[in-house]
Amino acid sequence: MKLSILTIGDEILIGQIVDTNSNWLAQESNKMGLEVYQMLTVSDEDASIKTALDYLFEHSDIIITTGGLGPTKDDITKKTLSEYFDTNLVFHEPTWERIQAYFAHIKRPTNEAHKAQCVMPEDAELLVNKMGTAPGMVFTKEQKICISLPGVPYEMKYIMENHGFDLIKERFQLGHIIHKTILCMGAGESVIANKIEGILNEMPDKIKVAYLPSIARVRIRLSTYQNAMDADLEQELEHWTQRISDELGSLVFGYGNHDIAEIFGNLLKEKQLKLTLAESCTGGQIASKIVSIPGSSAYFEASIVAYSYEMKNALLEVKKETLEKYGAVSEETVKEMAIQAKKILSSDVSIAVSGIAGPGGGTPDKPVGTVWMAVAYKNECYTEKLQLGKNRLLNIEYTSVRAINMARLVILEANSNVKTI
Amino acid sequence: MKLSILTIGDEILIGQIVDTNSNWLAQESNKMGLEVYQMLTVSDEDASIKTALDYLFEHSDIIITTGGLGPTKDDITKKTLSEYFDTNLVFHEPTWERIQAYFAHIKRPTNEAHKAQCVMPEDAELLVNKMGTAPGMVFTKEQKICISLPGVPYEMKYIMENHGFDLIKERFQLGHIIHKTILCMGAGESVIANKIEGILNEMPDKIKVAYLPSIARVRIRLSTYQNAMDADLEQELEHWTQRISDELGSLVFGYGNHDIAEIFGNLLKEKQLKLTLAESCTGGQIASKIVSIPGSSAYFEASIVAYSYEMKNALLEVKKETLEKYGAVSEETVKEMAIQAKKILSSDVSIAVSGIAGPGGGTPDKPVGTVWMAVAYKNECYTEKLQLGKNRLLNIEYTSVRAINMARLVILEANSNVKTI
Repeated sequence: MKLSILTIGDEILIGQIVDTNSNWLAQESNKMGLEVYQMLTVSDEDASIKTALDYLFEHSDIIITTGGLGPTKDDITKKTLSEYFDTNLVFHEPTWERIQAYFAHIKRPTNEAHKAQCVMPEDAELLVNKMGTAPGMVFTKEQKICISLPGVPYEMKYIMENHGFDLIKERFQLGHIIHKTILCMGAGESVIANKIEGILNEMPDKIKVAYLPSIARVRIRLSTYQNAMDADLEQELEHWTQRISDELGSLVFGYGNHDIAEIFGNLLKEKQLKLTLAESCTGGQIASKIVSIPGSSAYFEASIVAYSYEMKNALLEVKKETLEKYGAVSEETVKEMAIQAKKILSSDVSIAVSGIAGPGGGTPDKPVGTVWMAVAYKNECYTEKLQLGKNRLLNIEYTSVRAINMARLVILEANSNVKTI
Repeated sequence: MKLSILTIGDEILIGQIVDTNSNWLAQESNKMGLEVYQMLTVSDEDASIKTALDYLFEHSDIIITTGGLGPTKDDITKKTLSEYFDTNLVFHEPTWERIQAYFAHIKRPTNEAHKAQCVMPEDAELLVNKMGTAPGMVFTKEQKICISLPGVPYEMKYIMENHGFDLIKERFQLGHIIHKTILCMGAGESVIANKIEGILNEMPDKIKVAYLPSIARVRIRLSTYQNAMDADLEQELEHWTQRISDELGSLVFGYGNHDIAEIFGNLLKEKQLKLTLAESCTGGQIASKIVSIPGSSAYFEASIVAYSYEMKNALLEVKKETLEKYGAVSEETVKEMAIQAKKILSSDVSIAVSGIAGPGGGTPDKPVGTVWMAVAYKNECYTEKLQLGKNRLLNIEYTSVRAINMARLVILEANSNVKTI
């Protein structure tokens, strides 16, 4: 069963707001076993809306529209949809009563514009909206339906969660979609694709694969559609997920929709380890990733962001000789930073990074993008060097996630890349 | 001149990621005087892409596509577009050389998949991508063009900012749009709108106003369209920008496309002040904002992220009595944090924050979202309390930008909100 999402509103087309409604509707629809065919955004203009409906109905059983149901002149969705589905607008007494009661509750007067909003398409089914004035509307055309919702996210969600999804389940026979997502770090998309090409060639066609790269990470998503719940298919998906994971080994850092900081945090909690940090080029980014996870105070103690030479010496007691002889961006310095962060801040594990984030500051032997990372754990200190590009923000983000994963691998004793000192 | 945006990728349709590319492209296109006709998202599927191109070209002079240019099997955009625009795929030596140089720089080997990516449509113009492997491609069809870009946001932005927008300006006669953007912080959109309503009513119709709210900030954009460069119009826009700014006073923190960390950094450089930080609930986010600005080592020394009670005492020497009597989230504690961060780390100005970011950890007298900020400067310490909501990430981001702006206002002696101790 295919669904399309039609967003109506000039504010999206001028870039004033990001359309998050479509994303939420897509997520929820997929969970239910609906395939989202396309998402389209058009302006508040009669002809655009009608052309868009024609276009999307070609391949969709259900269209959900959001936006254009407000009280102002530019909101024309209701009139346009009524024309498109060939029904008349008539005054709807129950809606008017509900709006009056709502305004009495929030102690504000109603006006003519509110009353005008109570004109409803005669043949549409109305879905109650307890979060605002405009109800949802369901238009039917042969076997297909169009659900029209207000653009305000919490009103839209309320109507779908309380009425819209149930209505879809009643009217349509839905299939199941199952997804498995493998989270990888430490190699690029093409290297990973190369490694698992053989496995993918063996995989049955009914399982689809997608690569979703982001900074320093690649997610591999396996999906399969089925018409009824099928335990075998679920097992089969699990089997292929496992085969790919086995092939990728320590490149895999998790599954599903999780962040590296969350996965690392769970490991620290499980092993009851306290973490401290010594950051230079990442300037607090590693700490802020750790702290972004609720409950991180259970394992995170402190970070020292020592940006200058003086502070590396004053706060982390990195030896002056080390800094002078090897420089701030060196294996020797970052190693001392990690060991000191663990010792001074008395933790079980510490991460340290120092590098040249750019765009300036490079030298011939240490070009922009040179980064050293170190992890001190138990009585050892592990180091790893990265050679990155010239984009400052990318380098900071890349280093931060890689450093967290490096510590994870060290704790799991799974680090094949890192060098022990 | 009309432009449409076509996003290609299953990951958007299953709701795995929010499409922010389209929003950015719409914003930038509008600034240039291009009208965005529609935005459409389709799957990585040959027929869908071709039908979408037909549909959008009906009413668009330019189509920008994003996504589907990666090295893996599911990325079919290049092949599909070449068929659609009737051109052959041929091996492109300069791209292969560029990719090899890039991989040599980051010290990783290239493989067959990288080489396969260097096959390019013969008749397309290529736009260099220094941020990744896939260049942008420009296809021409009669008077219309299609620009195909990778879906990775920073690659897409790099190509458009360095090549794509220039190419559009060369090929098409665009109207002139002049924008002035006023950056505000310290009040919400509706409060700001209320304050300047009178001025906006006097403003001529040819100047359009848009409010662009983001976390803790509201940008007010004044735009005017003209067919030729007109110095009077520019002056007129400047006049209204000034009137609005005068009305908003210290709520305005800057103009144009600048970040609060950049504006604050410039102030520190100008006044030759050194900055240090003591962070608790923001967990390094303030430091990472400061460090995100190139050249920040000129004024940023260090941050102590003291997440636990012990660390606030051990690293920042906050008195045990203060912590016990008032708690970590209190005016007294945050004041000591700021004063100590300035003293111990010997800087000219310091910022400290402590709060309950949530979602857990609240108490009846200190609910989730209670945040204290302090700024120590010269011989004084200023404090300010925020009462925020329950969303952890929002609270951290909101606090970080507000704390930086607080320090800016203190240095400028413009702080009307903050309380002196």
